[in-house]
Amino acid sequence: MAEDITAYVAAADDDIVAQLKDFLRIPSISALPEHRGDIQRAAQWVAGALRAAGMPRVDIMDTGGAPLVFAHWHVSDQLPTVIIYGHYDVQPVDPLDLWSTPPFEPSVRGGRLYARGASDDKGNIFMPIKAVEAYKELHGQPPLNIKFLIEGEEEVGSPHLAAFMEKHRDLLAAHLAICADGSMWDHQTPSLVTGSRGLAGLQIDVTGPAGDLHSGNHGGGVQNPLHALAAILAGLRSPEGKILVPGFYDDVRDLTPEEKAAIDAVPFDEEAYKAQLGVAELFGEPGYSTLERQWVRPTLEVNGMWGGFQGEGIKTVLPSTAHAKITCRLVPDQDPDKVLDLVEAHIMANVPPGVQVSVRRFPGSARPYVMPVKHIALTVAADILSSIYGRRPLVTRMGGTLPVAEMFRRLLGVNMVFYSFGGPDDQIHAPDESLPLAAIRRGIVAHYEYLGALARVDARQLQVSP
Amino acid sequence: MAEDITAYVAAADDDIVAQLKDFLRIPSISALPEHRGDIQRAAQWVAGALRAAGMPRVDIMDTGGAPLVFAHWHVSDQLPTVIIYGHYDVQPVDPLDLWSTPPFEPSVRGGRLYARGASDDKGNIFMPIKAVEAYKELHGQPPLNIKFLIEGEEEVGSPHLAAFMEKHRDLLAAHLAICADGSMWDHQTPSLVTGSRGLAGLQIDVTGPAGDLHSGNHGGGVQNPLHALAAILAGLRSPEGKILVPGFYDDVRDLTPEEKAAIDAVPFDEEAYKAQLGVAELFGEPGYSTLERQWVRPTLEVNGMWGGFQGEGIKTVLPSTAHAKITCRLVPDQDPDKVLDLVEAHIMANVPPGVQVSVRRFPGSARPYVMPVKHIALTVAADILSSIYGRRPLVTRMGGTLPVAEMFRRLLGVNMVFYSFGGPDDQIHAPDESLPLAAIRRGIVAHYEYLGALARVDARQLQVSP
Repeated sequence: MAEDITAYVAAADDDIVAQLKDFLRIPSISALPEHRGDIQRAAQWVAGALRAAGMPRVDIMDTGGAPLVFAHWHVSDQLPTVIIYGHYDVQPVDPLDLWSTPPFEPSVRGGRLYARGASDDKGNIFMPIKAVEAYKELHGQPPLNIKFLIEGEEEVGSPHLAAFMEKHRDLLAAHLAICADGSMWDHQTPSLVTGSRGLAGLQIDVTGPAGDLHSGNHGGGVQNPLHALAAILAGLRSPEGKILVPGFYDDVRDLTPEEKAAIDAVPFDEEAYKAQLGVAELFGEPGYSTLERQWVRPTLEVNGMWGGFQGEGIKTVLPSTAHAKITCRLVPDQDPDKVLDLVEAHIMANVPPGVQVSVRRFPGSARPYVMPVKHIALTVAADILSSIYGRRPLVTRMGGTLPVAEMFRRLLGVNMVFYSFGGPDDQIHAPDESLPLAAIRRGIVAHYEYLGALARVDARQLQVSP
Repeated sequence: MAEDITAYVAAADDDIVAQLKDFLRIPSISALPEHRGDIQRAAQWVAGALRAAGMPRVDIMDTGGAPLVFAHWHVSDQLPTVIIYGHYDVQPVDPLDLWSTPPFEPSVRGGRLYARGASDDKGNIFMPIKAVEAYKELHGQPPLNIKFLIEGEEEVGSPHLAAFMEKHRDLLAAHLAICADGSMWDHQTPSLVTGSRGLAGLQIDVTGPAGDLHSGNHGGGVQNPLHALAAILAGLRSPEGKILVPGFYDDVRDLTPEEKAAIDAVPFDEEAYKAQLGVAELFGEPGYSTLERQWVRPTLEVNGMWGGFQGEGIKTVLPSTAHAKITCRLVPDQDPDKVLDLVEAHIMANVPPGVQVSVRRFPGSARPYVMPVKHIALTVAADILSSIYGRRPLVTRMGGTLPVAEMFRRLLGVNMVFYSFGGPDDQIHAPDESLPLAAIRRGIVAHYEYLGALARVDARQLQVSP
């Protein structure tokens, strides 16, 4: 089968690149209202590509925002069903003058295809569509049941996706989700993301005197909200970086030996990382490696803090208010609401004298997401990636949050495998975004083989949760 | 003599108000360049008033900024010389729609004269000018040698005053300075300000990673400058409000029994103060009363603090930098440079790991200023105010800084007595600024009598420093 698909992709290479270029010419920027028509055109284009791939059912569905493209090819009730996720919208292109060629005039240079969306995510979502088309051409149908869910609002935070999923649970039902959005460790090193951290955030508002005061006339008489806020924030973490909120770490699940070994196997270069960030030393919770701190330990970070005078020089004000925004990254099995309860309780138990403190929780909490390293959907993917790249994939996690994985798990009850073929040098969200042509060919082959391998797995095994 | 001057002022009342209204019609706003011509007109008006008062020498002198009006009436080498300070410039008038009558169309309502500058400082500087004129009319000359120094940049921080004083030390030489700018405790309660706190300030700049980072991807890996800054600020003061900088209090002079008694005698209503400020409790260094903390104890206050995201909602940034502005109010015998040395050393000795910290000192430090409560110039003033108001003046201090007093002391070697007749309800710097007509009459009489009393004091006694 590997020979078949590789030959097929090689023979179709010119067509594949030409078709992807068509897709890339549509400036489907979801953040800018003036591109609303382009969003519609891109959805139409995706629907056409899915029909061309043989998908019997292709619907452009209303969400209240940008439409979702749903497709379904039912082969047999005896086979597993996978649902493949991606998005057809792209980031804005500013600053335009830093692009070597115009962002919506795709151009091949040095073996790379340059355009906005080449990697994120038009190039990556195009790969499984072409893999299905290859099945149609080579075998008449795919080896298992396939659904596609391709949205047009990922770059603006997928504001309508969860509601759509809740409304269409039956339509979207599957045994496994595959995320065709993201990247490998690099274009030579495959990797499988097995988890991401959750998110929970709040704002602290400290109020002292009813209005700003003259710090000369009143200083020494009343509490200063800026000092009070500094004391609150300083009390949230130890000088070494351990979070001091009682109970904060209680629900953190210990790593399995496999998970720890997988992280230890990642070739992380601390010196290169320090140089990249421009810091003299790394920092964080004692007792854990940098990758552990970023991937599998929870954090509490102040994201913003302000109050009083911020201009040039002196203004001797004792301000009325001070503010800070805090987000926590969560790991299994922490619960966002419970963590916010703990943080809020700690803040309110440590309010300095002379001020009022209130806490507002931000919407948009996300649970942490993790798949067991030994999950069959990952071991199958690892074998395929090994044969294609000639090396075993790294097993990684994300320090950030992947809300889509958490949504699929929570709303559809399925695991999500991150299976996408971008690289860290693709300049996604930046000028001169690109994707190697080799990655496109490799990705189509990899999706083709993964679908074939998943077809041989028992459906119930795919749905096992950690 | 009291009968003479009181009768003189009563007889001249209409003229006095009419003349002051003329002065108030000039919109001499020093902060706004479009009023540069009005600044010149106001200086000319002051010079004319001084000439009309009989001052033999009146010069409008260049400073590089708004001109200073200098005047001199030398009576006898055997008599003391006093120099009277004030300013002819005024604050801007925004918001204009909150004025009941236009700010530069003086209007009398309910026994008060309403106009921008009515109290601060045109009304107050007009009083000693009219007192000298009264001496001219009643006695042909004043009872001692008199100089005036009336500037036009007080409301913008007197940027050229110190250089002018240094250049013209001989011209300005005197035994005592009288500040005709400020206010009494209230219009029924006389008070004498005997000291003000000094000022020293710096900015703390904390730098972590070279650029803003995604707090999900990098959180847990590197120090967050906002946390580092919070820790630095929290380390500057104890939770109870005591400043933790080693050596900070070393040079603070103990209060004399007279000073402590004077403060204890001030009828300070803590409940009213809390209600005015809108706070549930007062706060500050343990072991001292509120007035002591505001008047005779040094402070360290954060005036501004910022870093990261300040908009609505969440932005999961781990920012590159964080900043804070700090000012200290100083009391005798603290030295601004030495205090900044101590604060800077404490900050640099407590830099959290993973960040760079730099400190920038602000220009504009001021030394604390104090006159002994028993100084002859104060006891004489107290006797006169007692007879005019029918009650002994309170002996107070300023929590804020009076740079002009410190400048006169440092550059001319003279004490400054604050002798001015505004009140806390005059709405200075605000819409509907006003001054009671009774305060104008009382102020002219009080200046007249004070000059007469000072003429009987030995000149050397007036110059005694604490």
